Amino acid sequence: MQLNESLVERILCDILARTVSEGLLPQTPSAAAVAAPVDPYLVPVGVSNRHIHLSRADMDALFGPGASLTRMKAMKQPGHYAAKETVTLKGPKGELSKVRVLGPMRGSTQVEISVADGFSLGVRPPLRQSGDLDDTPGIEIVGPHGAVTIQRGVIAALRHIHMPVAVAVDLGLCSGDAVDVEVSGPRGGILSGVVVRVGDPSTLEMHVDIEEANALGLKNDDLVRILPRS
Amino acid sequence: MQLNESLVERILCDILARTVSEGLLPQTPSAAAVAAPVDPYLVPVGVSNRHIHLSRADMDALFGPGASLTRMKAMKQPGHYAAKETVTLKGPKGELSKVRVLGPMRGSTQVEISVADGFSLGVRPPLRQSGDLDDTPGIEIVGPHGAVTIQRGVIAALRHIHMPVAVAVDLGLCSGDAVDVEVSGPRGGILSGVVVRVGDPSTLEMHVDIEEANALGLKNDDLVRILPRS
Repeated sequence: MQLNESLVERILCDILARTVSEGLLPQTPSAAAVAAPVDPYLVPVGVSNRHIHLSRADMDALFGPGASLTRMKAMKQPGHYAAKETVTLKGPKGELSKVRVLGPMRGSTQVEISVADGFSLGVRPPLRQSGDLDDTPGIEIVGPHGAVTIQRGVIAALRHIHMPVAVAVDLGLCSGDAVDVEVSGPRGGILSGVVVRVGDPSTLEMHVDIEEANALGLKNDDLVRILPRS
Repeated sequence: MQLNESLVERILCDILARTVSEGLLPQTPSAAAVAAPVDPYLVPVGVSNRHIHLSRADMDALFGPGASLTRMKAMKQPGHYAAKETVTLKGPKGELSKVRVLGPMRGSTQVEISVADGFSLGVRPPLRQSGDLDDTPGIEIVGPHGAVTIQRGVIAALRHIHMPVAVAVDLGLCSGDAVDVEVSGPRGGILSGVVVRVGDPSTLEMHVDIEEANALGLKNDDLVRILPRS
């Protein structure tokens, strides 16, 4: 086992979570908990349509050297936004135009599509958490200035929960924990093993893609509930 | 309360189910149970793409007076088949072509589309069990011979399980019962309140639409599991 920064963080979080849950440290309501809904386990839903994150190099190739993204609409996660810029994805079977670029730019280009989009394009996106791009397929991306073919980076995003540190401490959760989430309604049920990503600044939100939202009867800002561990 | 045939059937089934579950009647393994997988609660999945069932009158209007459906591929449910015939659906926002007609014909025309299809067409399909068409939207349907505008009949099908009587008796279930169903995999979880339709002849199968299949990581013939009642 390698003792890196993320492992140390994880161990510290586990100790803190256990300390709180065993009542060794009194659990004082944080600002986040006070502002949160009555049930602290409720999480608003955010539905993601297909989109792309671009690296600086691919941005240059697609929109011209030194081009910058134009902010169109803020996302709920602080600092993240939908840009005015869009691209076309070209797969072996078909293409999808007007695919929204999300800002800011990233170290690596990442394409997030649904399973159905994958059928239209002729690409099979593996289910992955954002950033986990080893052994993922590539695709051709076309912009107004030029085109690039990425060798990897196409995924279907695995559902996940963004969680501020204060909320995670209140719920006794650590980054990377998997929780079960209850969805109500005629297409409801329980989603197993939804990964929590704890960080500041962030906004409490469970991300699902459009197919998941439709299949579960969910829309933006609907509330789902993390099931407390028994 | 009206004592109709379906209510009598329901009461008899409840009595039978209780008799079996309380061991008053020895539960002999039926032919279905012997042929079934080791775990009798496992159910194969059937994924439905968008499709349409036609009434005789609408068949006449769309394909010509007296026209008949051409069998192309048998469905798993006995007697049901995909026909060679297709139609185009025209909504206020868009249209979907090559929508498969399923046979045999029915008393009422019924259009089964996904939530995403509804967005493309500009029609909002309510979540319904097949045949429950009160207060559902209509749509224009175009065939090679002519077009009809139905006043109702567009739904997004609620997931459900087709179950032969012998299996239902083994599991102590009655038609109309709602069960929880476990789905494995990274997009797995538990589907709540999946309605069971018991009848003979039928093939054990849980029907979901394509969005549900993609969102749950399911494909045809994958196995899901009915959770025994505790």
